[in-house]
Amino acid sequence: MRLSRYFVPTIKENPSEAAIVSHRFMLRAGMIRQSVSGIYTWLPLGLRVLTKIENIIREEQELAGASEVRMSTIQTADLWKESGRYEDYGDEMLRINDRHGRELLYGPTNEEVITDLFRKEVKSWKQLPTLLYQIQLKFRDEIRPRFGLMRGREFTMKDAYSFDIDEENSVKSYYRMFVSYLRIFNKMGIRAIPMKADTGPIGGNLSHEFLLLAETGESEVYCHKDFLEMDIPDNVDYDGDLSKYFQEWTSKYAATDEMYVEEDAKKFGDDIIKTRGIEVGHVFNFGTKYSEPLHAVVMNKEGKEIPVHMGSYGIGVSRCVAGIIEASHDDKGIIWPVAVAPFEMVVLDVKPKDEESSKVANDIYKNLKNHKLDVAIDDRNDRVGSKFADMDLIGIPLLLVVGPRGLLDGHVKLVSRKSGNSINLSVEEVQERIIKAKSEDSLQKFVDSI
Amino acid sequence: MRLSRYFVPTIKENPSEAAIVSHRFMLRAGMIRQSVSGIYTWLPLGLRVLTKIENIIREEQELAGASEVRMSTIQTADLWKESGRYEDYGDEMLRINDRHGRELLYGPTNEEVITDLFRKEVKSWKQLPTLLYQIQLKFRDEIRPRFGLMRGREFTMKDAYSFDIDEENSVKSYYRMFVSYLRIFNKMGIRAIPMKADTGPIGGNLSHEFLLLAETGESEVYCHKDFLEMDIPDNVDYDGDLSKYFQEWTSKYAATDEMYVEEDAKKFGDDIIKTRGIEVGHVFNFGTKYSEPLHAVVMNKEGKEIPVHMGSYGIGVSRCVAGIIEASHDDKGIIWPVAVAPFEMVVLDVKPKDEESSKVANDIYKNLKNHKLDVAIDDRNDRVGSKFADMDLIGIPLLLVVGPRGLLDGHVKLVSRKSGNSINLSVEEVQERIIKAKSEDSLQKFVDSI
Repeated sequence: MRLSRYFVPTIKENPSEAAIVSHRFMLRAGMIRQSVSGIYTWLPLGLRVLTKIENIIREEQELAGASEVRMSTIQTADLWKESGRYEDYGDEMLRINDRHGRELLYGPTNEEVITDLFRKEVKSWKQLPTLLYQIQLKFRDEIRPRFGLMRGREFTMKDAYSFDIDEENSVKSYYRMFVSYLRIFNKMGIRAIPMKADTGPIGGNLSHEFLLLAETGESEVYCHKDFLEMDIPDNVDYDGDLSKYFQEWTSKYAATDEMYVEEDAKKFGDDIIKTRGIEVGHVFNFGTKYSEPLHAVVMNKEGKEIPVHMGSYGIGVSRCVAGIIEASHDDKGIIWPVAVAPFEMVVLDVKPKDEESSKVANDIYKNLKNHKLDVAIDDRNDRVGSKFADMDLIGIPLLLVVGPRGLLDGHVKLVSRKSGNSINLSVEEVQERIIKAKSEDSLQKFVDSI
Repeated sequence: MRLSRYFVPTIKENPSEAAIVSHRFMLRAGMIRQSVSGIYTWLPLGLRVLTKIENIIREEQELAGASEVRMSTIQTADLWKESGRYEDYGDEMLRINDRHGRELLYGPTNEEVITDLFRKEVKSWKQLPTLLYQIQLKFRDEIRPRFGLMRGREFTMKDAYSFDIDEENSVKSYYRMFVSYLRIFNKMGIRAIPMKADTGPIGGNLSHEFLLLAETGESEVYCHKDFLEMDIPDNVDYDGDLSKYFQEWTSKYAATDEMYVEEDAKKFGDDIIKTRGIEVGHVFNFGTKYSEPLHAVVMNKEGKEIPVHMGSYGIGVSRCVAGIIEASHDDKGIIWPVAVAPFEMVVLDVKPKDEESSKVANDIYKNLKNHKLDVAIDDRNDRVGSKFADMDLIGIPLLLVVGPRGLLDGHVKLVSRKSGNSINLSVEEVQERIIKAKSEDSLQKFVDSI
């Protein structure tokens, strides 16, 4: 991608409407723009991050045995009346009448629609378990939308739903999603910690929130320090016993202030740290809460009709973009983990008008692109200081600076956004090392080594 | 993918609500389900096709120099009042009031929102041309939704918008999109022919519809037979002169019945064929129609503020899925082009309970998967006849039949969905040939050779 032709309207000053870091940097880096209160347009750079997160989720949800579907955003009110939630949901539900006066709504969540689909299609225990997910827009008409994507009205969510013959099997599905979530957030380059959640308004038995730790987070959390270093499940056999992972990740203490119980925490003494967090995922096992009123039943082995056991599993996809920024930034801008950065690296052409050095920059750019690097070239005719400032603001993990002065000395400069350190390397060696790291899938390690 | 664990609720009987072939087969093959009138859920198999089409569009739009954005589905009525279309749009616009009583709407199209974004961010001719696209949901409250995805209410569209300093440059952007569209439809494995369109309601100067030819199409079309065989632009330099492609593809006669002029067609004598078509794309150059009322101006080289010249370019993404089925099916079901098939091929395990032959089927499946084939295994414990019928219905291009009887004779059977022909090959040779075709990107040719 040539930044000279890309739509990246960066802003030098802090926008007055942005009260938190992520909102401020997403506006300044040209990632999003508000179109109406709480409703945003994703600009190219922001959409790249969102899409990478979506694809990580897809890959891991499929591994865990979930199949992707896509429900509509507009739903009929009838289903919500059937489940008993239509009145309860209150003003946050965007209610709509169509041209024939029929009551519709913009889905704030999809338990009703998926249960309706299930009850029409699945009739026997033989067809279970069923595990479906989607990545789709939701709308919640917040009374005071704020904090950018953190509490917007239209937003992207991943929601999954499990259907099982009984409690025991539905807990297995819960473990699948629990393990999948540990892996998803880890792949995004962040640490999200499962914390026991209140099963309150949505009801049910087993529930965890996944909180991303960030000093600027919305909630106070208490968390065993081992969670910061604990190994993420690897080479997972999703058909095997997953309870060991669940045990490991729930045996030590972690809770938001709402659920905090001092005497439980005390058992771990000084190992409990107090910090702040942002909710990025939520898993629920709610048994027959929806299948009973909506009569979603299957025939069991004994030929008896029984309501199916369900769970739902959400990730705030657009919220993750903001959450990662809250967890990873400095005064100058965002510091993206490689896995979700808009570009893994940028070749910064210091002087596009200098034919010779510009040719070197372009050759390196094309060569890295051919080797599957997700690379852009900053070939804009701006002052070099303003280009550096933009790259710091946008948070590109790796910057390769190519200019006439360095080339005279036979080198180009590689800068790590995270450490701020740089190394000088020859044109040949820098490409070799980057291509090697990419082919070994260790670009993040390479960046961390600078 | 193991079909035994996949959500593919196929239906044996023709559903009474489906009046056209594509709707019927999409329901029967378990690709979609209606949730409310004109509003559908995409099931896993259907979503795979939709996603493949989306990705073809992305790849080609990026090649043509367009950058992806994602606007919200919910828009403010204010912008539409400013452009003067709020009242004109009529009952097809889904109008909504939020909790504060503010007038919103579900976007039926995005000219207003994108022009608003542009006018706030772009101020100078130096930032032009700007070419942005999105793949996003739209809603049009059709009075009588019907024909499944062909005339649904909530649907997926690709819409692109160009912004140029003057008429001459905006025509260049128009050519870019025109050529990109020829390539996009060709990559989907279909032939869509550009036909001069009425610039009526949306206004403007230059406009073409792209019609997919299908005997069951909605419109009668007259079209020069050369268009059926004409070469699609290849190795396109999008920064070069594209007018030659435009000339080539517009110099011969093609028109829908609405635009048909007998004396123009007559010049081509017997070369004009009369058939039917389905609109899948539409490109417009409409000059300053929106930039003037919305005051989207830029500074030109002389330092004078002038309204920007715009174009918009749509593809009915979900409509394409239905359109391809209308153009490519038989009595038994769908016949997918390889590029957009839910799976490129399926290994049909004839007898999953036979350990030996089932192991061979599974080994082949895993090996092909490792070689990047988009392959599924039909390991369902159904009658083999019903499995064959399902594969014909779903329209998998290539079926590899592995059963104990064939293996006794040392072979497996490869079946082409399109021709119905089959060949017997050894377990080794069949894999070699498929892997070779895949690595050479010639899987469609291979299928066609059977």
